[in-house]
Amino acid sequence: MIGMKKEIYVDNSATTFMDEEILNIYFDTIKKYYGNPSSLHQLGVESERVLKEGRKIIGQTLGVSEREIYFTSGGTESNNLAIHGTVTAHGKRGKKIITSCIEHPSVLEVFKNYQHQGYNVVYLDVDQFGFINLEQLEKEVDDDTILVSIMLVNNELGTLQDIVNIGKVIKEKNPRCIFHVDAVQGYGKVELNVVKANINLLSISSHKFHGPKGVGALYIKEKTNLAPIFQGGGQQGGIRSGTENVPGYYAMAKAAEKMFKNPDVNITMRNLTNMIKEEIIKNVKDVMILTPKISAPHIMTLAFKGIKGEVLLHSLESKGIFLSTGSACSSKGKGISHVIKAINLPREYQEGVIRISLSRFNNEEEIKYLIHSIITSVEELRLFI
Amino acid sequence: MIGMKKEIYVDNSATTFMDEEILNIYFDTIKKYYGNPSSLHQLGVESERVLKEGRKIIGQTLGVSEREIYFTSGGTESNNLAIHGTVTAHGKRGKKIITSCIEHPSVLEVFKNYQHQGYNVVYLDVDQFGFINLEQLEKEVDDDTILVSIMLVNNELGTLQDIVNIGKVIKEKNPRCIFHVDAVQGYGKVELNVVKANINLLSISSHKFHGPKGVGALYIKEKTNLAPIFQGGGQQGGIRSGTENVPGYYAMAKAAEKMFKNPDVNITMRNLTNMIKEEIIKNVKDVMILTPKISAPHIMTLAFKGIKGEVLLHSLESKGIFLSTGSACSSKGKGISHVIKAINLPREYQEGVIRISLSRFNNEEEIKYLIHSIITSVEELRLFI
Repeated sequence: MIGMKKEIYVDNSATTFMDEEILNIYFDTIKKYYGNPSSLHQLGVESERVLKEGRKIIGQTLGVSEREIYFTSGGTESNNLAIHGTVTAHGKRGKKIITSCIEHPSVLEVFKNYQHQGYNVVYLDVDQFGFINLEQLEKEVDDDTILVSIMLVNNELGTLQDIVNIGKVIKEKNPRCIFHVDAVQGYGKVELNVVKANINLLSISSHKFHGPKGVGALYIKEKTNLAPIFQGGGQQGGIRSGTENVPGYYAMAKAAEKMFKNPDVNITMRNLTNMIKEEIIKNVKDVMILTPKISAPHIMTLAFKGIKGEVLLHSLESKGIFLSTGSACSSKGKGISHVIKAINLPREYQEGVIRISLSRFNNEEEIKYLIHSIITSVEELRLFI
Repeated sequence: MIGMKKEIYVDNSATTFMDEEILNIYFDTIKKYYGNPSSLHQLGVESERVLKEGRKIIGQTLGVSEREIYFTSGGTESNNLAIHGTVTAHGKRGKKIITSCIEHPSVLEVFKNYQHQGYNVVYLDVDQFGFINLEQLEKEVDDDTILVSIMLVNNELGTLQDIVNIGKVIKEKNPRCIFHVDAVQGYGKVELNVVKANINLLSISSHKFHGPKGVGALYIKEKTNLAPIFQGGGQQGGIRSGTENVPGYYAMAKAAEKMFKNPDVNITMRNLTNMIKEEIIKNVKDVMILTPKISAPHIMTLAFKGIKGEVLLHSLESKGIFLSTGSACSSKGKGISHVIKAINLPREYQEGVIRISLSRFNNEEEIKYLIHSIITSVEELRLFI
């Protein structure tokens, strides 16, 4: 670790540390409920009960039934399962699948794969803030369309899509079209009514909200036909074979429960990201705010003219601040990200992007230090241009 | 839990409890190394280092390079990845794939799926102890064969296959044929030289050796071409996208390291399972030992004439003993298991199967109590036939 230095972690969209309280629940559950839920004896029955309780808690956060919650190994698996599972189960009905050009790689790459296989794949455009166009969506959804996958909150920009109206447009054009929402960045951070939004499938990831890593979930609306990716022992109704990670799933559920019980945290985070925006605009020249007003409360993405994001990142790191240049959910991607390309940022800003992503553990003092550090780092770096 | 009662857990092939020492390592790693390995800053770099250390430890247990170790969410994913990945990458070379009729469902079901897709799938027969026939294998492997998947140790019987000679036969008939070994039950319990055995792919699962749940690994021999299942951020060289569960992988590696450092434990377990066998044969009529001599040291499977395994299981449970009727790795499968069917057990024994599976935490006192309890339970139950 970084010894005696200040450590301000504002890279929570990449991953979060585990909440101490949730960590204790996790460890208690590991110790107490180690039985395999498939075992016929008492220890199996008890694990099965904990699993059910976990499903119930996640279901409650979404206002859906516990029977509609399936556990996975994380956001990537949830997104892959949603898309592969839909195309496998519904591929005979139609060959058109629609997404946006700024989705997470665990969505985009799966779509690309189906494009290579001959599917008719449409990547919706986005405007300068990352919003899709409802009219374009309406034009594209037709009888041949089996799936639309749109993320709730963009991981690089924080953009909050109009999911309710997107769902409405999709179902009005084709009621049988499956609507998948990658909610990995938005779950618990923004309001969402999955029923009103006509969502069939919704992905979440535990390590984005202070739960354990290697755990996620997929909401599968009742009567939504989905094929599994993994074949095996038939756990989770055959949708997701493999011995269940009972303590991991339960700890994720408790982390989710805690997040949903404290919605005021989102107001605090919104105030802090707004403060960053205002102070940076006031004090720094040639900066663009990439995060729109309609966004998740915890993300603030900025672009500085003529500065390399990675250099700024390391300058801030030397001051004890940890953040990201773009998406850290992918493997150290070189070059300009597909999201930055899609929003048509002026060329001289494209390399100067940093993403600040907060959690409920960040406080005002930290953010004031962060703002001060950004201002001085940018000044220092611009001396050398 | 079961309160003040004695608790003798001999269902370790279903799952194990976490070793307290490994649990503490897990806890420390979760707290210290929470950064996303894909992050460019120090916290990411440190996590990447821990990930590499984990790969190195697993590699050492197998006598292979750390670059050949890939992390997954468990045995089911490892097996699915091995088979799907091979068929996807090599399907143009040939259409024949071979396995045995007593594999784990996470292998068998994947093969069945390819059978439905028109692949030429061969399920090798086994004898009364679960051994495959090398001559049949030799006849079946041809130029069209792209994959042979054989488990190291059978989860229901404990049967230890002759992996080295199986690998030899495969490669002599077709050097390009991929050899996958499901080592979930055998890893660390029996000797295995993956290089000498010509293994291309090998699956392991953490929760079978006192590591955390939801974690596994796949050994992929250098130059073995494998397609991923998950598309996404391109982590782990694109073979397994998804943010890495760094603490989980590392804790699994430490659990593996501890197991490999204490091979004497296997001798102790062998002595205890032998004791069970001898005492039960001596004291119980109409019992068959299903586990052959050439087997993993920790498994002892017995069949009692005219008794229902599930009834015996619950009788033993009332005495504080937890074990399994057959495989508990699948979803409470009803009826006779595919393994029991395959070994042609006499009909009156088929429903009377119980599997005892030990771990290094079981001691002689427990096993003596277990033996006594089995003898008395069987006597009691037979009064009611």
